[in-house]
Amino acid sequence: MERLHIELGERSYPILVGPGLLGEAGLLAGAIAARDVLVVSNTTVAPLYLARLGHGLAGKRLAEVVLPDGERFKTLETLSRVFDALVEHRMNRDACVVALGGGVVGDMAGFAAACYQRGVDYVQVPTTLLAQVDSSVGGKTGVNHPLGKNLIGAFHQPRAVISDTDTLRTLPPRELRAGLAEVIKYGLIADETFLGWLEGNLEALLALDPAALVYAIRRSCEVKAEIVAEDEREHGRRALLNLGHTFGHAIETATGYGEWLHGEAVGAGMLMAADLSCRLGWLAPADVDRVRALLARAGLPLASPPIGAGRALALMGMDKKVLAGRIRLVLLRRIGDGVVEGSCPADALQATLAAHFEARA
Amino acid sequence: MERLHIELGERSYPILVGPGLLGEAGLLAGAIAARDVLVVSNTTVAPLYLARLGHGLAGKRLAEVVLPDGERFKTLETLSRVFDALVEHRMNRDACVVALGGGVVGDMAGFAAACYQRGVDYVQVPTTLLAQVDSSVGGKTGVNHPLGKNLIGAFHQPRAVISDTDTLRTLPPRELRAGLAEVIKYGLIADETFLGWLEGNLEALLALDPAALVYAIRRSCEVKAEIVAEDEREHGRRALLNLGHTFGHAIETATGYGEWLHGEAVGAGMLMAADLSCRLGWLAPADVDRVRALLARAGLPLASPPIGAGRALALMGMDKKVLAGRIRLVLLRRIGDGVVEGSCPADALQATLAAHFEARA
Repeated sequence: MERLHIELGERSYPILVGPGLLGEAGLLAGAIAARDVLVVSNTTVAPLYLARLGHGLAGKRLAEVVLPDGERFKTLETLSRVFDALVEHRMNRDACVVALGGGVVGDMAGFAAACYQRGVDYVQVPTTLLAQVDSSVGGKTGVNHPLGKNLIGAFHQPRAVISDTDTLRTLPPRELRAGLAEVIKYGLIADETFLGWLEGNLEALLALDPAALVYAIRRSCEVKAEIVAEDEREHGRRALLNLGHTFGHAIETATGYGEWLHGEAVGAGMLMAADLSCRLGWLAPADVDRVRALLARAGLPLASPPIGAGRALALMGMDKKVLAGRIRLVLLRRIGDGVVEGSCPADALQATLAAHFEARA
Repeated sequence: MERLHIELGERSYPILVGPGLLGEAGLLAGAIAARDVLVVSNTTVAPLYLARLGHGLAGKRLAEVVLPDGERFKTLETLSRVFDALVEHRMNRDACVVALGGGVVGDMAGFAAACYQRGVDYVQVPTTLLAQVDSSVGGKTGVNHPLGKNLIGAFHQPRAVISDTDTLRTLPPRELRAGLAEVIKYGLIADETFLGWLEGNLEALLALDPAALVYAIRRSCEVKAEIVAEDEREHGRRALLNLGHTFGHAIETATGYGEWLHGEAVGAGMLMAADLSCRLGWLAPADVDRVRALLARAGLPLASPPIGAGRALALMGMDKKVLAGRIRLVLLRRIGDGVVEGSCPADALQATLAAHFEARA
């Protein structure tokens, strides 16, 4: 088991990564001081892991709420079911919410914890690669609005993140690949050495080699944590973590939440960011090819839906990473060196959007 | 105009109190740095003051959302209308929400601001006495759950509070009296001298004498701010502000939100707290009479609904100020000296509840 300490003053917390953690007696109970625990999960994950989690929490007063599975249920309406469960089980301020599932469960459980009685503890037990390397770390919680993703939420840090890599064995391969997009992201924005390691170990990751998984998850969390520690509330550098996201949000919003997985949209978006960085003269064409090749080897879709450049731009404009009407984009100065660009030339952006969002002959 | 500075580090803000503030050119605009402003109000207050507020914000990109009036609309469902307005008017992270109305509007506007894009600024423009002396100060925001008040919310400090005492001229007298209950509360928990001043100036306050109002509001905010500054997130001393509230919540919940005004329930609850403090030997019977006399002069209802002591206790048990299953009550060591009591003898509490909640012959 690897243990990573996220340093955020009094909101510091540990991330534990390893195979079989859900079965380790005392590990979960040790991470949760509360007597009263509400486990939030979904209809896919609960049958697989809820009993095992409950076993590890013997002695607690345990309640559960099982939500429908899918990004389209990440709404205020579904969130109110978590509040209902907290109230109906008479959970108090000293209760703890445990998120057992992927990013949607984690975001909603964390947001419910942020708001219930104006803030109770929560612990992340992510069961998807995406959640293990991204959404469970950093304290961003929230739900979607029909007109935009994650528009309603809170910053609320978990008390602990417990990532059992064995849970990835039940993850659909498509979701594993989507999670790899975010892993690749960390290499692109901050660590070319890690990107090289990924190029050398991609097959091991796809084959769920435990040691490779633990290393990739740990290093991903490390990169994310370093960036978040510098900028917890996303005023500056944290925006680097959004590489590919603004483009990706356009894909997700245009196709309706759920058709493209988040990580898939981010993957295609990262390719657009690389393309645009190349048009600005920062990346060489060979660098773009390198990004494309790795994403392709990870089995990620690279062809964006032909929604047209104009519509894509409009959808990007509704994205929450807009500042005073100007689009900020995360681009790459070099491989391993992300940068937040607030004044990207319109013609270069237009060319990238046209190349990726126009219908191909 | 009186100006009070609330010291909370980088979340510090000013409270401005005086007659005619909504009409003072530049005052509002000066308090709001944002270009984009969403005004949240209700169907009662908007026709009276929205135009005047808009005049003071000329030059801003202004949008508005007018909510139904009343505590029963302080729900997640109504809150989603504020999110809809923010999204539909394409408000960004640098937008500002302005709450124009009473406590319900302030709580919902503040909570929406806390959650929208994980936090935007908001400014309170309270138009009820209750909001001017209590809910607009301290950063507590939120909505009710069907099974309990304020169970869902956030701590989010306003950028400024602007209390125009002229708005109290359109306030129903019953609401003015309910607001006075909270003013009296500050005297009871922290300042016997202020309580004496209130005993000498109650008629001036009921007659809306401007100087008396400004003094009472300013002193109330000062007491609240001192307590909040010591304990922003309500781990200890801030609970003093809940004098009368746990008893009062039982009244409000039993009768359904809206039949009793919040301040009225708090008034009756403070009398119960005084009664219980007397049973514990802390207050003399004459002190209880003094509390009762002042509340009566303020025109507040003192007879609690005959719901029975058992039901009252159950309703108090669901209150959010419960810690690990034990009821914490705010009581009075002396007049002007509130105390949070975590282990109140059950028989004394039972006697107080019986005296106030049992049907009278």
